[in-house]
Amino acid sequence: MPGTVSVDPLLRVAVAGGTHGNEMSGVFLVKHWLKDSSQLERDTFSAVPLLSNPKASEKGVRYFEKDLNRCFTLDILSSPDSPDDPYEVLRAKEINRMFGPRGSANAYDMVLDLHNTTSNMGVCLIVSGVQNAIEMHTCRYIQTRLPHFNPRIYVYAKPGGESYSVDSVATCGLGFELGPQPQGVVRADILQKMKTLVEVTLDFINHLNKGMEFPAFETETYQCAGQVDFPRSSDGEISAVVHPSLQDKDFSLLRPGEPLFLSLDGQSIHYSGEKPLYPVFINEAAYYEKKIALILAEKVRVSVPALRRRTH
Amino acid sequence: MPGTVSVDPLLRVAVAGGTHGNEMSGVFLVKHWLKDSSQLERDTFSAVPLLSNPKASEKGVRYFEKDLNRCFTLDILSSPDSPDDPYEVLRAKEINRMFGPRGSANAYDMVLDLHNTTSNMGVCLIVSGVQNAIEMHTCRYIQTRLPHFNPRIYVYAKPGGESYSVDSVATCGLGFELGPQPQGVVRADILQKMKTLVEVTLDFINHLNKGMEFPAFETETYQCAGQVDFPRSSDGEISAVVHPSLQDKDFSLLRPGEPLFLSLDGQSIHYSGEKPLYPVFINEAAYYEKKIALILAEKVRVSVPALRRRTH
Repeated sequence: MPGTVSVDPLLRVAVAGGTHGNEMSGVFLVKHWLKDSSQLERDTFSAVPLLSNPKASEKGVRYFEKDLNRCFTLDILSSPDSPDDPYEVLRAKEINRMFGPRGSANAYDMVLDLHNTTSNMGVCLIVSGVQNAIEMHTCRYIQTRLPHFNPRIYVYAKPGGESYSVDSVATCGLGFELGPQPQGVVRADILQKMKTLVEVTLDFINHLNKGMEFPAFETETYQCAGQVDFPRSSDGEISAVVHPSLQDKDFSLLRPGEPLFLSLDGQSIHYSGEKPLYPVFINEAAYYEKKIALILAEKVRVSVPALRRRTH
Repeated sequence: MPGTVSVDPLLRVAVAGGTHGNEMSGVFLVKHWLKDSSQLERDTFSAVPLLSNPKASEKGVRYFEKDLNRCFTLDILSSPDSPDDPYEVLRAKEINRMFGPRGSANAYDMVLDLHNTTSNMGVCLIVSGVQNAIEMHTCRYIQTRLPHFNPRIYVYAKPGGESYSVDSVATCGLGFELGPQPQGVVRADILQKMKTLVEVTLDFINHLNKGMEFPAFETETYQCAGQVDFPRSSDGEISAVVHPSLQDKDFSLLRPGEPLFLSLDGQSIHYSGEKPLYPVFINEAAYYEKKIALILAEKVRVSVPALRRRTH
């Protein structure tokens, strides 16, 4: 992917938290910025804080009726309004009107969305794909500025698959997924990292807006390859838990034959896939109801063209 | 407290899990034992598994309408039934009928109640007071058999204060509080420890029933001395989080002047109490709504008389 991508300055930027109301770094930061947004100001723009799911944040739950961060599909966003719509469908349409509409010229330039996981994912930067040079350069800038955070890039949509997350209403979107942190808890260490990530991202946008050029690069990404459910007994109940040797080993290579699960009577269940993959979201609390014990990702190297501000 | 306490054999024993429906070690173990209770059988008795709060366990939440583990007061248990009673009040009365009534000759001999915390409490044995020789000897036996678990004894009721937990319906009650574990997650390491604690406790009861004698001893306990809320702004929102130097330091001595909280603008708030105390339940997710950031405990050495089975 040679050449250089030239882009207009990014002037309309939002930082969303509380998309899941029990992921507390974002809830806490956005509530703070709604009172005092000075940390979101830069020379060339000021970012806007957004509490995505006020009702879920108020109750301290992931969602009220439906997972908001799965509602930003064209199907849902373009569906006719109905009094039977779950709260989150109404809220998704509202956010789409405020910060989109998705795919339109009116859409915000960038939305950052702040998440936590109970998994040991460290600092994970989530994009829906690898084609957007601004998103990829944002990740690169974060990796360069904050190497001690060891930020990894995770691509959640399969090639050709539709994005569905809050940040997809904007032209560019990025999720920050920080863990491990229990649901409903604010940890100071994670909070500080999240705040730094947002600050560095806004710095990057400011540099881009002011004319700084960013050279082409190659980087490694982790791309979703599939998901694995817990073993279950005939009544549907979970019959084995994440193996202690796999627990907390997000982003560590899992090889065929290595243990995945452990039953209460001490039986190990092994990974029977054909190729080694990288497990992520291992034992994430919110994924039990989605029947996901872990996600398996492939490490894929991608080339990203240079990036600079368009000069008229 | 010299002398020897002689007791009748403990034949009616229950093991409760899911008292809080998102504390998954107990939910998982009790569901397993409800299918196959062979691990709960001993020579002299068989313990009965109890899923305390089925509705909350089904939904994966702490409680449905009211915290069940605060419902076992004489006031609530003796209140006239009302159609407006929260689910957990009805359930508390039902459990009291099944395993109590509290304080009566019909009450079960012992109820164990399995809990998890998001705090770094390790293996914590919870009693309502230190007067019950069977409870204290159970703790002692666990400490002796499982020294690598470093089990600590926490006394939740203040002297003269009423107990209110599920296990208080029985003549003897003990809570196992294991952490850190996020709400809604089963960790294999914590699950294995919980299972071992139950097994060792049932072994102790079996030995006592069969005539083994247990000598008097002294031990250290951590007794609840007070609780500390988060700093809050005028609108009631939390304005500072648990200080990173305090996070995960449950059971480590906190001295006057040491940091408790950290605000987003980097201000530390210090412990202004007069005497050093031991913080526990630091940053427990379920206590945010109770306005408890941590509990402060005093270390108190207690003497426990010898224990043996009564011979008729």
